[in-house]
Amino acid sequence: MMLHRQAISSRMTRMLPSFVRSMATTETPLDASKVKIIKTNTPSKAQPNDQLVFGKTMTDHMLTIEWNRGKGWATPEIKPYAPLSLDPSCCVFHYGFELFEGLKAYRTSDDKISMFRPDMNMKRMNKSAARICLPTFESEELIHLIGKLIQEDKHLVPEGTGYSLYVRPTLIGTTNTLGVSVPDKALLFVICSPVGPYYKTGFKAVRLEATDYATRAWPGGVGDKKLGANYAPCILPQLQAAERGYQQNLWLFGPEKYITEVGTMNVFFAFQNKETGKKELVTAPLDGTILEGVTRDSVLALARENLDPNEWEVNERYFSINEVADRAAKGELLEAFGSGTAAVVSPIKEIGWKGKDISVPLLPGEQSGPLTKQLASWIADIQYGRNKHDNWSQIVAELK
Amino acid sequence: MMLHRQAISSRMTRMLPSFVRSMATTETPLDASKVKIIKTNTPSKAQPNDQLVFGKTMTDHMLTIEWNRGKGWATPEIKPYAPLSLDPSCCVFHYGFELFEGLKAYRTSDDKISMFRPDMNMKRMNKSAARICLPTFESEELIHLIGKLIQEDKHLVPEGTGYSLYVRPTLIGTTNTLGVSVPDKALLFVICSPVGPYYKTGFKAVRLEATDYATRAWPGGVGDKKLGANYAPCILPQLQAAERGYQQNLWLFGPEKYITEVGTMNVFFAFQNKETGKKELVTAPLDGTILEGVTRDSVLALARENLDPNEWEVNERYFSINEVADRAAKGELLEAFGSGTAAVVSPIKEIGWKGKDISVPLLPGEQSGPLTKQLASWIADIQYGRNKHDNWSQIVAELK
Repeated sequence: MMLHRQAISSRMTRMLPSFVRSMATTETPLDASKVKIIKTNTPSKAQPNDQLVFGKTMTDHMLTIEWNRGKGWATPEIKPYAPLSLDPSCCVFHYGFELFEGLKAYRTSDDKISMFRPDMNMKRMNKSAARICLPTFESEELIHLIGKLIQEDKHLVPEGTGYSLYVRPTLIGTTNTLGVSVPDKALLFVICSPVGPYYKTGFKAVRLEATDYATRAWPGGVGDKKLGANYAPCILPQLQAAERGYQQNLWLFGPEKYITEVGTMNVFFAFQNKETGKKELVTAPLDGTILEGVTRDSVLALARENLDPNEWEVNERYFSINEVADRAAKGELLEAFGSGTAAVVSPIKEIGWKGKDISVPLLPGEQSGPLTKQLASWIADIQYGRNKHDNWSQIVAELK
Repeated sequence: MMLHRQAISSRMTRMLPSFVRSMATTETPLDASKVKIIKTNTPSKAQPNDQLVFGKTMTDHMLTIEWNRGKGWATPEIKPYAPLSLDPSCCVFHYGFELFEGLKAYRTSDDKISMFRPDMNMKRMNKSAARICLPTFESEELIHLIGKLIQEDKHLVPEGTGYSLYVRPTLIGTTNTLGVSVPDKALLFVICSPVGPYYKTGFKAVRLEATDYATRAWPGGVGDKKLGANYAPCILPQLQAAERGYQQNLWLFGPEKYITEVGTMNVFFAFQNKETGKKELVTAPLDGTILEGVTRDSVLALARENLDPNEWEVNERYFSINEVADRAAKGELLEAFGSGTAAVVSPIKEIGWKGKDISVPLLPGEQSGPLTKQLASWIADIQYGRNKHDNWSQIVAELK
């Protein structure tokens, strides 16, 4: 099974057809220096931090860039936030030509605005675009443009640990025809929403339902890409789990019941071998069915750098709900958490499986385990500029 | 494998969560009698038949119906065709909350306009909607509204066998938030495009590439629903096949290499057992990974009614590319064709598999096999009202 999955994945990433490649050489590349800025006449005031709702209020400006096959990227525009006007036959409404990214901008202690590893998001966005034949672009140019967009609305980047500006780059196909074909027009837009901490009063560990009747992703599919296609189908299983008292689905795969992701996040488990005493932090490998999470990558890197290798192993490997159930029964399950941009880490306290709940240990009187808490703290220190780590934090705007 | 797939499929179709169910009882149902009609001031002239391009030119009017959770369906509006204005945070752009139907309206010989089995499309549209938590509706009401829409643009329904009005009902989620959640707002719209025959000069048999490195649909997924999510991911494999000289992908599934669909159509194969002389028409079973095609269903019904059961078996069963290759080598492969609304039937002449081409027989000097041709003719006779079959043809508007 493992070999089969990996073989499919690598064959899918073969080079793009030549006509798609050849376009790239004759088209105008994305160029941040050409940006045209039209400022709003009615700048808004920042909402109080305690009234921020994730993704509900947007900032005053948006970035839009049109693309046409043969011509390439048009002049980037930063302009007042406004509705999009699209023909009803536009391919984004019919055939799922859409993808997005999610990343955050933070106020640092020295009055700058930084983004966390934006190069990773741009790389993934280009991979998503190539997979559904939408145009790719120079990552650095889009990061630069996002910086300019944030600069316009810098007064709306909230202050305080846990507060940030959520940035949503989106790319949609805009060809007007009902024929299913490669889009010859596209629109890249970026909108921003000031957001608070995912858990307002500290962590709140969640209950998951291990789900095998609905399947999030499949070898040879697109589960590793941030496409709209991967999201709508996951809502019904979530409602079904919620009816049974679980907040999210723990997505299983195949007859082996491998653990893949949780809700819209990657997922980590920590075990301790009772005989050897050795601990292990584990997450599913990137085999084409797993989103290449930036937080996932950061957790792995920080764990590998900071955890004592005599005490810990950090592994990307297949592991099943049956292994989790068995090791929980033996007292070998230490912790479990989801990882993603919105919540950074999201501790798990129980997993429903085969009519029973597997308990995941938490610190006494707290809502997370010690490693989960430690990882969250390491990441926050980098995001808010308190720890310079490998240029993970990139300054994109200035407050003063 | 077969049991596993069917078990997953039936578990996925369990009832909707209670809060989704309960809404239906308190919300305003879709009501065609309330329709508000705003006529265009600039009615267009019909294009000459030879200039019609599939899905490129739309008629003068569109139907739109808004939906709000708790309120239900608003007043249906038939109004001049115009762009949609949507907030950039609208969930249709980010999370794939979109689904559609495709059906055709025909001028009958007695000056009426009929649709082919619209009840089947409405049933499927409701299934698609329920799967991604968009609102469902009373099928008869939407058919009635589509009739009224066509009535407004009846001069644009082209005349002649092979010509028709392609009707595209679409349902999108319109909630404005970046949080991934159940949409509380939606828009149902219907647009129409006058279209000519898929094959302007009679059939043109296609070459397919049997594709196992990309997977169109899987158990526990949404491949049986007409969601936008199923389309964009299939374009890159099609381009890759085109580079190697094949027009479409023949989608395979699993280690058994089962044949599932072709391009965006269902697929049929005809075999003859050399020993018994018995013929078989076969297509993949509806196990949750196969689109419940209206043309597929019609082909099966007409074949079961009209083919001599002493000569033919008509089966929905799993069959693999290996079976096709083996039987072609033995001279047992008779015909193969895709089925769908756009082309009705689409004959296949060659299938690339493991570096070789499997030849599919055609009538001497023609571009289809005899059964393919016969089925196309039976269906056309019903669509254009020359044969009344079980009310498959439903009058929805009057020309005079």
